[in-house]
Amino acid sequence: MKAVINTLYEAKLAELKEKIDAESIPVQLTIVTVGDDPASKVYVRNKVRLFEALELPCHHIILPEEGTTQADLDGLAEKADHPILFQLPLPNGLEAPDLPAAVDVDGFGSEALGQLVLGQNPVLPCTVQAAIDIVEAHCGEYSFPGLKVAILGRSNIVGKPLAIELINRQSTVSSFNSRSDLAAVDWNQFDVIVVATGFHGTLDNTQFIEGQLIIDVGINRIDGKLVGDIKHQDGHLSAAAITPVPGGVGRLTCLNVLGNAVKLCQSK
Amino acid sequence: MKAVINTLYEAKLAELKEKIDAESIPVQLTIVTVGDDPASKVYVRNKVRLFEALELPCHHIILPEEGTTQADLDGLAEKADHPILFQLPLPNGLEAPDLPAAVDVDGFGSEALGQLVLGQNPVLPCTVQAAIDIVEAHCGEYSFPGLKVAILGRSNIVGKPLAIELINRQSTVSSFNSRSDLAAVDWNQFDVIVVATGFHGTLDNTQFIEGQLIIDVGINRIDGKLVGDIKHQDGHLSAAAITPVPGGVGRLTCLNVLGNAVKLCQSK
Repeated sequence: MKAVINTLYEAKLAELKEKIDAESIPVQLTIVTVGDDPASKVYVRNKVRLFEALELPCHHIILPEEGTTQADLDGLAEKADHPILFQLPLPNGLEAPDLPAAVDVDGFGSEALGQLVLGQNPVLPCTVQAAIDIVEAHCGEYSFPGLKVAILGRSNIVGKPLAIELINRQSTVSSFNSRSDLAAVDWNQFDVIVVATGFHGTLDNTQFIEGQLIIDVGINRIDGKLVGDIKHQDGHLSAAAITPVPGGVGRLTCLNVLGNAVKLCQSK
Repeated sequence: MKAVINTLYEAKLAELKEKIDAESIPVQLTIVTVGDDPASKVYVRNKVRLFEALELPCHHIILPEEGTTQADLDGLAEKADHPILFQLPLPNGLEAPDLPAAVDVDGFGSEALGQLVLGQNPVLPCTVQAAIDIVEAHCGEYSFPGLKVAILGRSNIVGKPLAIELINRQSTVSSFNSRSDLAAVDWNQFDVIVVATGFHGTLDNTQFIEGQLIIDVGINRIDGKLVGDIKHQDGHLSAAAITPVPGGVGRLTCLNVLGNAVKLCQSK
């Protein structure tokens, strides 16, 4: 899978660069962080670097953990006239403002999600778009109707919007969560399994068969090492195609922040 | 099932009456119809009668098929300061305006649907609420987490929002559509099957077993007779609980228009 991801990444990046140049799209992004969550730092750095590499403006607003109020965040959201994102998690019970779809580069707000249900969304949440990209690259652009997809996890930022997007694309979608009896499920009935629970070991790589595509959305730190939600048993080489962690979904997610910013800045 | 539905209907109606009186909620509704679709007439009449029986104002605006423009509908939507619905289907390519959630008694608009994805919706689409009510009445209020539910059909007004609501309630949800290979599915693995395809005979009553709850959302007219999406084979009495058509989901859906109007008028 590493090669598929790399090819996909390079192709998408080249396409975005060409589009920005050809149509002179004034792409820019504002990232707001509060405090200094270490994982957030890495994610934000990757986004900033990507924009810098393309010489596109990326404004990074860093607010102190101490003293930042909900009104500060809401004020930034109200003023936003181009794509903006509030890097999660936010400390002290602060909540990301519910952004209008026109500047909601993450696609997490209620306006973008409502449009998603109706199939009228300008962008998808970046990780959802990454999963869609991987299915397209591996199974083919026209593979979605009738495709049997399992989604483990029902978060507002991955599991739920991915289920909705796949239903829009006429896939047969099964949504599992922490209350599902996972041990009783025949995982081999699915063409694609997306694991987005945030728990390492939700499934393991001995449970899949040839022909299956397994998309591992998780990023967990275990004994100082980054691992996904799929446990790779020592010495077992799965016959299924499994996206790597790191260097899989996360890499494409970062690229899709740029892709979404391009879409939003283009349609202005 | 007929008894369960009747009990549920009467209990909900009594509860709503009591709530309206006790809290003096100024409930009212506006229904807009365009032209004279015969099925719509029946649905609208049922809603009007329900409001009349409770001596609650229900304004019915009837626009001619000839000459009514999108701007006419959008104008009514903009002026709405209390619950309103545009009875579907609309003729001549007219579209129901995308209502603000505060007056969107059907819960079909993008604002209400976006809030649904985030679990913050004031109301559910009336048929979705009916399906939820039936599961609660038959399986119990606390049955949703881990409940295995199949949904056939992926419409914006039933299948998709029902899938989202059940995912919110931690059910294990499988969504099927016209591109799914229905013949290959083991239907007996599900606790609840909701059929909302609009096609009579999507499944038939010989396919279910004892302990299953089958919710038939369809209303089809075959040889002048109203039938659901489930085909009832001559002489076969299913061991499963199957909601009747008519007198099942549709009856509760109509009541839920009142229920949603109460919620919206209460929260003003």
